[in-house]
Amino acid sequence: MKAILSHGKRIAFCALAATAIGASDSPAERLMGAALGEGRAYKIAESLTDGVGPRPSGSDGAARAVKWAVGEMRALGFKNVHTEPVRVPHWIRGAADAEVIAPARQQMHVVALGPSVPTGPDGITADVVAVESFEQLKAIGDGARGKIVLFNPPAMQRGSSFSEYGRLQAFRGGGAAAAAKQGAVAALVRSAGTGAFRLPHTGAMHYDEATPKIPAAAVSAEDADLIGRLIGSRRGPVRVHLVLTPKFDADVESANVVGEVPGRDRPGEIVLLGAHLDSWDLATGAVDDAAGCAIVMDAARIIAAAPRGPRRTVRVVLFMNEEMGLSGARAYAQAHAAELGKHVAALEVDSGQGRPAGFGVVGAGGVALLKKIAAPLATLGAANVVEAQEAGADLMPMGGKVAELSIDQDLTSYFDWHHTAADTFDKLDPMDMALNVAAVTVVAYGLADAGETLPVVAPARRGPPMLLGPAVVTQPVPTPARK
Amino acid sequence: MKAILSHGKRIAFCALAATAIGASDSPAERLMGAALGEGRAYKIAESLTDGVGPRPSGSDGAARAVKWAVGEMRALGFKNVHTEPVRVPHWIRGAADAEVIAPARQQMHVVALGPSVPTGPDGITADVVAVESFEQLKAIGDGARGKIVLFNPPAMQRGSSFSEYGRLQAFRGGGAAAAAKQGAVAALVRSAGTGAFRLPHTGAMHYDEATPKIPAAAVSAEDADLIGRLIGSRRGPVRVHLVLTPKFDADVESANVVGEVPGRDRPGEIVLLGAHLDSWDLATGAVDDAAGCAIVMDAARIIAAAPRGPRRTVRVVLFMNEEMGLSGARAYAQAHAAELGKHVAALEVDSGQGRPAGFGVVGAGGVALLKKIAAPLATLGAANVVEAQEAGADLMPMGGKVAELSIDQDLTSYFDWHHTAADTFDKLDPMDMALNVAAVTVVAYGLADAGETLPVVAPARRGPPMLLGPAVVTQPVPTPARK
Repeated sequence: MKAILSHGKRIAFCALAATAIGASDSPAERLMGAALGEGRAYKIAESLTDGVGPRPSGSDGAARAVKWAVGEMRALGFKNVHTEPVRVPHWIRGAADAEVIAPARQQMHVVALGPSVPTGPDGITADVVAVESFEQLKAIGDGARGKIVLFNPPAMQRGSSFSEYGRLQAFRGGGAAAAAKQGAVAALVRSAGTGAFRLPHTGAMHYDEATPKIPAAAVSAEDADLIGRLIGSRRGPVRVHLVLTPKFDADVESANVVGEVPGRDRPGEIVLLGAHLDSWDLATGAVDDAAGCAIVMDAARIIAAAPRGPRRTVRVVLFMNEEMGLSGARAYAQAHAAELGKHVAALEVDSGQGRPAGFGVVGAGGVALLKKIAAPLATLGAANVVEAQEAGADLMPMGGKVAELSIDQDLTSYFDWHHTAADTFDKLDPMDMALNVAAVTVVAYGLADAGETLPVVAPARRGPPMLLGPAVVTQPVPTPARK
Repeated sequence: MKAILSHGKRIAFCALAATAIGASDSPAERLMGAALGEGRAYKIAESLTDGVGPRPSGSDGAARAVKWAVGEMRALGFKNVHTEPVRVPHWIRGAADAEVIAPARQQMHVVALGPSVPTGPDGITADVVAVESFEQLKAIGDGARGKIVLFNPPAMQRGSSFSEYGRLQAFRGGGAAAAAKQGAVAALVRSAGTGAFRLPHTGAMHYDEATPKIPAAAVSAEDADLIGRLIGSRRGPVRVHLVLTPKFDADVESANVVGEVPGRDRPGEIVLLGAHLDSWDLATGAVDDAAGCAIVMDAARIIAAAPRGPRRTVRVVLFMNEEMGLSGARAYAQAHAAELGKHVAALEVDSGQGRPAGFGVVGAGGVALLKKIAAPLATLGAANVVEAQEAGADLMPMGGKVAELSIDQDLTSYFDWHHTAADTFDKLDPMDMALNVAAVTVVAYGLADAGETLPVVAPARRGPPMLLGPAVVTQPVPTPARK
């Protein structure tokens, strides 16, 4: 066969053979091959979701997750595996029951928002006023007094950015405080999510210390629509009975879990790969954020196994309590304050496992370097690099001190599952997971090995952090430093 | 303008003008225009779902639905509006709670099947054995003794027929009896439905009088997958705690609701348009079967309002208790036994509201006539006519005595919502509803006005009817008559 190959074909054949025996000369191709070959991230995610289960901050599940992460990181060959203390609130959901009792009895599907106050065991019964915006709420003035306010903005649309989520999330986060200011007795919000399978989406909210704390719950899209239609039908006042029994238990000593792949000649310089270990309690947090944990862990595993590791250290940080206050992120930023100047880049994977399209980098000055590093991902469709305004939530407390980047993932179905009881392992796809690992591996290795580094630019100011549990008292928000 | 039109164009122009002012000479076009213009069916369905709410047999909601139907039929201009007595079982769901307790604690999402027996308030705790088929169950022999059997066949695929549903439904219907025969203490079945939003699908099941009655519940696709994976992971026995507290209350006197558009010269001959008034209790039964009720009611309204009605009577029958025993269907067949020979056709709409593609008719001999009648629906894509093996469940007790037909509806999303808490009004689409009304109106009018009639052919033998509540005792299954 060799005899009949042209010179060009012979070269191609040899390259193929070399690749096939693992002797590719391109480090990026080797890393990609390793990412796409074994599919280890998918298995790591299965172990965390099925094996550990739900892991809301302060829970037994979260404690199991910390132990799991330590064991898993050691098994993956990381060095300097350890926990770092994080004090977290322990909010316990309790029961959530709601029913439309007039003009027609209909069971609703609701979940308390964290950290809602309870209604009391007998619940609250009141007429509902529905608004589509904060402006509409203001306009009804005293009309909200004694009422349950339903925030029912236009349905969230699928999209490629977080903008629609942000639009709905504003009501989840601030609806109760705004409603309380006008005398409402409880707040219901249309779920910040896509999909319509009678599935309410939980999430964090925040109270305003100047106004009474009123119970707050998310309702499924169907129930928001139902109440909207019932009000529109003028069959009479729409009356709802709402029972929420959440409570705070004492703060819990929990932990971030950290492991490293030490750099070969500048081990003190760090590329941070982050994700968050906690999940909401309604399911096993597969897309949010077991996927992210598994992707960064597998990326670091592949870098650790590379014949020639990068110059700098790749540090994996699995943050505790992203969902209810960013306590882990703040603890990390405080504990490592002196070392942040040595963090050459930080990437958090926290938008699921959808196929990667590329990366965002805070600050236009970093685009050129990141484009060069990501170029080998072009065939996988993951080489697009853009300037981003912000990156992962757990990077916020490091804002302005560390170069931040994010991975752009396909979000088409992410908000169907996000913060719901359906965020389970079956939502993950082995190939999409592996493509994310390939992208993160190539970029993390590249940043850890490059001669240049990304410029440090403060991200655009983000909304208020959701820091409202008891643990807030013990752990004040660091003043964001801006350059 | 007239001066420059050719003869042919002038004719076309006049026909267009005539149609535009409601003077179309084609009865079918007039009927279609009326169906597609007002969108009344959508409003009827809203009133039944939002206004009446869930209406499982024997419930207050079902009683309200009967009153609603009588009032609505009168408002729509039907004649001879009345109820016909139906004795129904009154099964009350109670609580359903299940948790995987080993090897990892995970809350499950389950619903009792109707009419499951209860577990007792403390529930049942047992190891789970999973099978994909009845053959696998047989093969494990004594291995099911003392266990909870999970029927976890390959996931149901979307399709254009009921065959996939039938494949899964077999386990829902007969799984508990088969498992009990091998000594199991409870049966769980993978939900007979598509979609995966942690949404269990309820439905009817039947016990075998020769074996003990064991509790039976449907689990969400996610939970079936989870247990499958946990067993596959060999982390140890998978143990589940299951609590179901359903109960039977006393039988209830309920009713079918009947109304007519009398024929202009053969009022004793009947085209029956059926749907079922009861729903499952988890939601408001929008696709199953408020849509069907609204479609046949609006079709009859349009026929009643036609300038020249058809020769025969169009009778709308809203059957009670399709879901838990076909009591209404049996009561109708018994009460009208002497009159069935005068039913020239019976059509039940009970597969949602997906866009119609045409009709099925039991017996090849009816295809030609139905094709002729449905021809004006070609532009709407609803003129396809095929021979069908069976038609609506409520027509079963009339099997072999009446010519049966069915409407072929797009089923792509039907089994996402079917028998779940997400079967709510928002799942309906005004235009799709109206297209169904147009199709049913044209065919019902055509059959009621035609010189010929469809031949009566017995449908293929269907599975065992689900007749297992106390009401069965008072209302034995009629022996199906076959010609």
